[in-house]
Amino acid sequence: MSPFTGSAQRTEEWRHLRVAEEEGVTTVTLDRPEKLNALTFEAYADLRDLLAELSHRGRTRALVLAGEGRGFCSGGDVDEIIGATLRMDTARLLEFNRMTGQVVRALREAPFPVVAAVQGVAAGAGAVLALAADFRVADPTARFAFLFTRVGLSGGDMGAAYLLPRVVGLGHATRILMLGEPVRAPEAERIGLLSQLAEEGAAGPAADALARRLADGPALAHAQTKALLTAELDLPLSGAVELDAATQALLMHGEDYQEFHAAFTEKRPPSWRGR
Amino acid sequence: MSPFTGSAQRTEEWRHLRVAEEEGVTTVTLDRPEKLNALTFEAYADLRDLLAELSHRGRTRALVLAGEGRGFCSGGDVDEIIGATLRMDTARLLEFNRMTGQVVRALREAPFPVVAAVQGVAAGAGAVLALAADFRVADPTARFAFLFTRVGLSGGDMGAAYLLPRVVGLGHATRILMLGEPVRAPEAERIGLLSQLAEEGAAGPAADALARRLADGPALAHAQTKALLTAELDLPLSGAVELDAATQALLMHGEDYQEFHAAFTEKRPPSWRGR
Amino acid sequence: MSPFTGSAQRTEEWRHLRVAEEEGVTTVTLDRPEKLNALTFEAYADLRDLLAELSHRGRTRALVLAGEGRGFCSGGDVDEIIGATLRMDTARLLEFNRMTGQVVRALREAPFPVVAAVQGVAAGAGAVLALAADFRVADPTARFAFLFTRVGLSGGDMGAAYLLPRVVGLGHATRILMLGEPVRAPEAERIGLLSQLAEEGAAGPAADALARRLADGPALAHAQTKALLTAELDLPLSGAVELDAATQALLMHGEDYQEFHAAFTEKRPPSWRGR
Repeated sequence: MSPFTGSAQRTEEWRHLRVAEEEGVTTVTLDRPEKLNALTFEAYADLRDLLAELSHRGRTRALVLAGEGRGFCSGGDVDEIIGATLRMDTARLLEFNRMTGQVVRALREAPFPVVAAVQGVAAGAGAVLALAADFRVADPTARFAFLFTRVGLSGGDMGAAYLLPRVVGLGHATRILMLGEPVRAPEAERIGLLSQLAEEGAAGPAADALARRLADGPALAHAQTKALLTAELDLPLSGAVELDAATQALLMHGEDYQEFHAAFTEKRPPSWRGR
Repeated sequence: MSPFTGSAQRTEEWRHLRVAEEEGVTTVTLDRPEKLNALTFEAYADLRDLLAELSHRGRTRALVLAGEGRGFCSGGDVDEIIGATLRMDTARLLEFNRMTGQVVRALREAPFPVVAAVQGVAAGAGAVLALAADFRVADPTARFAFLFTRVGLSGGDMGAAYLLPRVVGLGHATRILMLGEPVRAPEAERIGLLSQLAEEGAAGPAADALARRLADGPALAHAQTKALLTAELDLPLSGAVELDAATQALLMHGEDYQEFHAAFTEKRPPSWRGR
Repeated sequence: MSPFTGSAQRTEEWRHLRVAEEEGVTTVTLDRPEKLNALTFEAYADLRDLLAELSHRGRTRALVLAGEGRGFCSGGDVDEIIGATLRMDTARLLEFNRMTGQVVRALREAPFPVVAAVQGVAAGAGAVLALAADFRVADPTARFAFLFTRVGLSGGDMGAAYLLPRVVGLGHATRILMLGEPVRAPEAERIGLLSQLAEEGAAGPAADALARRLADGPALAHAQTKALLTAELDLPLSGAVELDAATQALLMHGEDYQEFHAAFTEKRPPSWRGR
């Protein structure tokens, strides 16, 4: 547990997500397979709160975001989300949309890499959750559908109009967000939306293996790599180079850098401590 | 017509472009096929003014930008543009180059998607006009030639050094803008410069069909998707997420979102109003 | 020599790099083949100082960055760099990391295009040097290994977390910088990391030919294209369009633009002066 912990109580039970921890790898599973893991207000709120708590708790060195069953996540539920928002006033609508955006910011700003394991549908908010992860490990059944315009909303939801052009370029992003057509695994791989294509049915195990490797490696170096990638999208070259210099100077005083040199000198594999 | 209309007169006749409107789709055709639709000072100025007027008029829900004949647009005319600029003083040169840049800003900031229909040559300013569109629908004869350095000018003309790296990445953009070599349809498709590859001779009809679909769909949602994609290239993640939240809250009070939910509940296709 | 030259002495002898000049093309060769051109503190410092001096001297119209032998550059030497940094205090570590970052800024801000000729390994700082070049000409033996995390450091070294997402997109960049796995020539070509793939053993000659072509062409136009590509990654669209307008107005008063028009009118090839 981080020493920087105040009076707020920890939550021991996440009722709207399945959460498991094993030696530095936290697995968060959207667990409503009968609805293709459609999100509810409570699931969004749990994702937001869980990511903050994992950051404070300090035990997570890599996170897997997965969906139970044959799909990853079908997005906001038509009845529970769309129907309910139609009855909300302006302030409440803004509050809801800010919450979903906070989930994306929390994924991008979490001090550990996030691996999305995608099989079947990743639609709407589900597609953006996968997009906000650091790695998208998918099997051939995966399809990403940024279908917001198809319900009459903007394709720029939860940061998608910021993130997608930076992943696949402005041309593909415009087509995908404006038309809302599904991007299937082969196209996703071709345009740079996938990090890894696994065998059918193997997205989960492949994501687990990647997260295990990240957690067992120089985890602070991984976390800082993510932090710099996130920050430097918004920095000029001069600021990016200065941030890199400060970060490397910091890590050169870290245990893992020392360990690498000792292991190299002694001709043995390094024993990473993640510090 | 928008109620936000002042004293300025509307223009009923565009003498340097062909303009047609049909139920929300405006088609602007560069119509000088004997010169491969080379641009003149007047054509640039008409493009700038037309885009502003279409925005005010409020009837355009999608725009097709096309070229008559076997090419899309061969860029600035060597005699009429290059020859004339050699006789201009500094202030006039700056005025000319600002005007061409305003055309690109007008394309990017127009409150409707723009579909370029490209067959044959899209060279110089013609290549940048296509680049500034939201969609590039091309046939196999299309070639994009950012040939500015070949006339002794900077490859960064009319925002090309801003836009091209964001569409195809910095490596390809450097090569293409620095060397000025033509990018033919297969390469353009491979690197993400094309939105859609049509059959030979079918770029126009395919662009028309796409614009029709955009105009008949949830057009305000499409317009906002474009606005966010344009704005969020220049925003940090925090600002992008906040802009998305405000936009979705706004559209959740719109007619099309309500219509989607009603249609879904009644198991019928939605009847979009573009509002 | 530029008239804007102060009291600082020029260096006639670069002891840690091999430097050759021939009619506007400067070739800088990392020349320590027995160590796969591993970098030393002195080589970094020479690169930083040489790039500044070439800018002042004003004779370089294109630069080739090459490595002697079977590899391009294996990065910082494990003994000479990693071992030494372990004994440095905080201020000295920051000074070292700022120096390496200054090399990258100098490459991006040099007033001439830089062509990296890559065969075999480009690892660590060697991979970032190639990344910071304007063109990467590689042969099939090339492999880029951003292996910083594998020594316990951040993948964002010397601006890599800024540059790589802008060249290959955020998804590929995250995978490559976080995992540190080598990117071989076919993948590098597929994701946009290569500018040109040469025959085996021909990266050097192909890079020389490209630099020769750049130096013999409208070199000021090439230099400005590079300057705008570099600057406009950090500018909003409005500023980019204004910078383009000012740059074109400037170059329209230049000799090469006039020469293009004269040559075109006289139906002869232009004789570029690079001004």
